[in-house]
Amino acid sequence: MAPDPPVDVLVVGGGIIGLSVAWQAAASGRSVTVVDPSPGRGASWAAGGMLAPVAEAHFGEEALTGLLIRAALVWPGFARDLEEASGRLVHYRADGALLVAFDPSDRAATDDVLGFQLQLGLAARRLSARECRSSEPLLSPGIRGGAELPGDHQVDNRLVVEALLAACEHAGVAFVSDRAEGVALEGGRVTGVSLAGGGSRAAGAVVIAAGCESGQVTGLKVQPPVRPVKGMTLRLQAPPDAPRLRRTVRALVHGRNCYLVPRDGGGVVVGATVEEKGFDLAVQVGAVSDLLDDARELVPALDEYTLTDTTTGLRPGSPDNAPLVGPTGVAGLIVATGHHRNGILLAPVTADEVVRLLVGNDPSDLFAAFGPERFGPATGDRSAGEPLPGTSRIPG
Amino acid sequence: MAPDPPVDVLVVGGGIIGLSVAWQAAASGRSVTVVDPSPGRGASWAAGGMLAPVAEAHFGEEALTGLLIRAALVWPGFARDLEEASGRLVHYRADGALLVAFDPSDRAATDDVLGFQLQLGLAARRLSARECRSSEPLLSPGIRGGAELPGDHQVDNRLVVEALLAACEHAGVAFVSDRAEGVALEGGRVTGVSLAGGGSRAAGAVVIAAGCESGQVTGLKVQPPVRPVKGMTLRLQAPPDAPRLRRTVRALVHGRNCYLVPRDGGGVVVGATVEEKGFDLAVQVGAVSDLLDDARELVPALDEYTLTDTTTGLRPGSPDNAPLVGPTGVAGLIVATGHHRNGILLAPVTADEVVRLLVGNDPSDLFAAFGPERFGPATGDRSAGEPLPGTSRIPG
Repeated sequence: MAPDPPVDVLVVGGGIIGLSVAWQAAASGRSVTVVDPSPGRGASWAAGGMLAPVAEAHFGEEALTGLLIRAALVWPGFARDLEEASGRLVHYRADGALLVAFDPSDRAATDDVLGFQLQLGLAARRLSARECRSSEPLLSPGIRGGAELPGDHQVDNRLVVEALLAACEHAGVAFVSDRAEGVALEGGRVTGVSLAGGGSRAAGAVVIAAGCESGQVTGLKVQPPVRPVKGMTLRLQAPPDAPRLRRTVRALVHGRNCYLVPRDGGGVVVGATVEEKGFDLAVQVGAVSDLLDDARELVPALDEYTLTDTTTGLRPGSPDNAPLVGPTGVAGLIVATGHHRNGILLAPVTADEVVRLLVGNDPSDLFAAFGPERFGPATGDRSAGEPLPGTSRIPG
Repeated sequence: MAPDPPVDVLVVGGGIIGLSVAWQAAASGRSVTVVDPSPGRGASWAAGGMLAPVAEAHFGEEALTGLLIRAALVWPGFARDLEEASGRLVHYRADGALLVAFDPSDRAATDDVLGFQLQLGLAARRLSARECRSSEPLLSPGIRGGAELPGDHQVDNRLVVEALLAACEHAGVAFVSDRAEGVALEGGRVTGVSLAGGGSRAAGAVVIAAGCESGQVTGLKVQPPVRPVKGMTLRLQAPPDAPRLRRTVRALVHGRNCYLVPRDGGGVVVGATVEEKGFDLAVQVGAVSDLLDDARELVPALDEYTLTDTTTGLRPGSPDNAPLVGPTGVAGLIVATGHHRNGILLAPVTADEVVRLLVGNDPSDLFAAFGPERFGPATGDRSAGEPLPGTSRIPG
């Protein structure tokens, strides 16, 4: 059997990053193939869809915050273009988020975060408990206050994934239902990938967008230091006539982070755990139970809702929690991974950046600090990074 | 198209009762058809599989308790015969159950129940907290004591359902994937049923074993006064090397009933809610969350288990919580429903009774008090019985 002819671009990984890259590259006239055993069903499927540059601004990550802010600005146009290209709605909502503190210690912690956000010049405003409940009447009377984050928006990540799959199909992207095992090199240039199921595919350029598995692709000179960071989301559905949440609520409940993202149609996504457990996707009783307890304490009306879905996913975490996006020492080989908790938010700017590199440009200023080889060559330990022990939910 | 030829016995409903009847009737040489849109997937599938004549002995239900005790004696032979006929294991386990009280009020309540059980001469023995934990080391150190119920056993109800389906198939039982709408009568005798999907089936005898939907079959002179009593079970799985429960634990946790039924292979069934909500199968957040909270409080090691399944079912409740089994005023028409919380336990004796009636015998002494028309003719309200408002978990 003759081998498949080479394509212009081969994308390893069909999550939101890989699909966005594939769609944009195909739309710019290139022939594109995506290699993934189950496109769209990894961390992008498990996510909650918050687009949260402000709530995700953490101490010591100021450069990343700058990137997140820019990424948020691109989303409305990306959502419109994607709806146009796919013929599907993705329910982008720019209605802002509420940060809520449940007990006095939670209040002290959210005030710290708020101070940091204000110091960075981010849009945030402290709210009393009364103001929080007037903004979101379903909140428990017990809450201690919070803040308004008008710049934190949301999108239905599962609709985005489905729309990207449709847009890719319309744009002529081919899909190979397999796992890419390694990249093939020739004379310092990438020439394609080998497949776990046997055989190989030839390509002029290869983009590694395999999320937390990106560090397992062989043949790379510098392996992306990503590790799996487990998360769980629950999906609830309001019964007819039940009261509904108006806005995204990000809360600290007795020191644990809990967010509630209302969808059009009465759905609510509840998340999210952050666990360092390796490649483990088990739906654990303790995690489900804690999430439900916190969500019910925060919004007692959720008791009557239906639990419709429980999903875990593995975020690709990097040593500094920032993405690894850019060219590598190998011609034609581009890396786009390490998006950790911000994969949905960063997908549009990442796709733009990768397409820019594919046509031969240098990295943009936006991603200058986020090159994939900034941590140096691999040390033999494929999944570097600094795993924290045990389970936690890090305040957003 | 010529109508199907009449069969000897048509069974309306393919839950554990209908399937047991069908298997036994076919094994006794009759031609049998079961009508059910999804055999084996109702309350029998949602159940926990406890065979609990002692724990289900309630004040004021002494006659029912006598039936339950007799039913339990039949189970070992029924399980053996079913395994033989189906070629499948059903994991009948005669290792007894523990009754556990979590707090002092729970202890007072379980002591009351224990006193009643002992007064009836049932096998039960009071245990200290230390004795409970020595019998089941995974129990929380916080428990206040309990009792040993050596006569309460268990079986994997889902394996039983699968085995009954196989045994029916081997015995030549035919299945019609439809809902029986009503019975057809001629000259005071039943002649078959009409189907919701159109058409009808002729039969020499009809057995109404449609669980909580038995009251909705039209054409009956006395409609069985059954109502749906919602229940929920969760299924957990122990990770490899995790400590496992040894025995069935039936607990009262802050006044709420919670049972944990360990399966061979590291599975645990957690149940069960008792809710009067009509024909509602929603998996509610409050019910899931309360069950998980109680189970974790009782056995903290469950935190590490995986949540693999969440199922709701509708038990057929009768006005006095006892079954409705026996002949009716219509020749050839037999009713077998109303088994409420004891459907798994009562299936073997119910099947024996129905086959006895099919061959022309009078009702046995065992079921003399449980005739289907003991509440008199229907009053126009199809689902009689006394619905309790709201949600509760009644102490076992």
